[in-house]
Amino acid sequence: MSAPLSSEQGSIALIVAYDGALFSGFARQPGRPTVQGRLEDALAVALRRQAPTVGAGRTDAGVHALAQVVSFASDGDEPPLPALARSLTALAGPGIVVTGARAARPGFSARFDALSREYRYRVATGGSPPLFLSRFAWWVGHALDAGAMSSAASVLLGEHDFRSFCASASAESGSTTRRLLRIEVVSEEHLGEECLSIHVEGNAFLHSMVRVIVGSLVEVGKGNRPAEWLGEALGARDRAAAGPTAPPHGLTLWSVTYPDACWR
Amino acid sequence: MSAPLSSEQGSIALIVAYDGALFSGFARQPGRPTVQGRLEDALAVALRRQAPTVGAGRTDAGVHALAQVVSFASDGDEPPLPALARSLTALAGPGIVVTGARAARPGFSARFDALSREYRYRVATGGSPPLFLSRFAWWVGHALDAGAMSSAASVLLGEHDFRSFCASASAESGSTTRRLLRIEVVSEEHLGEECLSIHVEGNAFLHSMVRVIVGSLVEVGKGNRPAEWLGEALGARDRAAAGPTAPPHGLTLWSVTYPDACWR
Repeated sequence: MSAPLSSEQGSIALIVAYDGALFSGFARQPGRPTVQGRLEDALAVALRRQAPTVGAGRTDAGVHALAQVVSFASDGDEPPLPALARSLTALAGPGIVVTGARAARPGFSARFDALSREYRYRVATGGSPPLFLSRFAWWVGHALDAGAMSSAASVLLGEHDFRSFCASASAESGSTTRRLLRIEVVSEEHLGEECLSIHVEGNAFLHSMVRVIVGSLVEVGKGNRPAEWLGEALGARDRAAAGPTAPPHGLTLWSVTYPDACWR
Repeated sequence: MSAPLSSEQGSIALIVAYDGALFSGFARQPGRPTVQGRLEDALAVALRRQAPTVGAGRTDAGVHALAQVVSFASDGDEPPLPALARSLTALAGPGIVVTGARAARPGFSARFDALSREYRYRVATGGSPPLFLSRFAWWVGHALDAGAMSSAASVLLGEHDFRSFCASASAESGSTTRRLLRIEVVSEEHLGEECLSIHVEGNAFLHSMVRVIVGSLVEVGKGNRPAEWLGEALGARDRAAAGPTAPPHGLTLWSVTYPDACWR
């Protein structure tokens, strides 16, 4: 017997990791394997009721998440949160791990309450195609000038119209202005293989925005374009002015930040 | 037209990465997918002759390699080595990357000329099962005392009869004495997930030796055994005295060291 659903009961935020290769993206789509679909099916079993969810970021097919945040309204009748997280991991099946669950205030939305999102994109930089990182990094098969990429990236910091870096501006529901809080090009090693990891934090992102930024930075890194070109591409407010869209498998939704006041 | 095979022509050492999950181990076995089998088939195509190979380490089914070394006798008629490496990667198929090739002196054996091998074993330490590391780390689902593991491990340093840490002493062709040069327990993060990585370097290893060492260290890390127990297990010279064999997927053959004089 569940208590009647009430906005007074608060919300629950799930922290979710997933392997993007196994899903047609985050957002539920009929007849396709999606992260949201599998989570909502798992919630229906665990809670014995339907629990519609909201995700912080609508990641595309192939894009991974280390800590996506997914919220739903509580009816006050859920199992203890650590047990709920473990159950959901087991029920959601391969490729999804619910790493935590947190009590949030009534009306909490993982999407609308987020202050910022951080994405990371890995570009493999070894002389051979990556093996262990093959599913987690884009190999461009070319030496990259990380300094030029870093210098080019800095022009994107702050609030701008990012229309040039958006897969389809006409598909965006509102403004194409976003605020980039941080962008860094970091040398990293994972599983013994070298990569450049591009860390991008912003208040929100347009569709494919990180992947177009990365595709453009790689043009600079290869020496196909000078560092100054990125500012021109930004100013053009035209998708055709920027570089290609980097493939999805190098991208991970890394973390989402909320005001402390969101939590119970 | 190939020149006749001659020991004067020198040898070639391939540096090979592979995903152990896809193979029944390194060593060629009829009717099974093995790394050596796939490499020798690729060499037969690339060189238009049979080239029997020798590997530095006979890794078991499921064990990965970042830099296995595989040698064969040169007939002086091979393509330039960077091109040979790229061809072999393409010909060997999924799960094998030949990251380099190096000219070695006549009679060079990747196995018998090796001064030391380094293996690394990852134990995932997060509170949830690892997602991105699920194929590359053993999740024990229990907090581990890294300090106790490190302290226990030090007793293994130096030359000892490692019979207690050998899957089947009767299957070893000779002595079960080996020399451990280095053993370290290191906190690492890969793909955003935490692990303890156990780095072990030795002159050579018995069958499953690293995995039995790791299985034993995890017993100490969990608090099931005191750190001193590892020395008793070593002294017993009896497989039953040591801990369980850790699963293969956490283990990677990391590197192999040779005298400089081996190279041409």
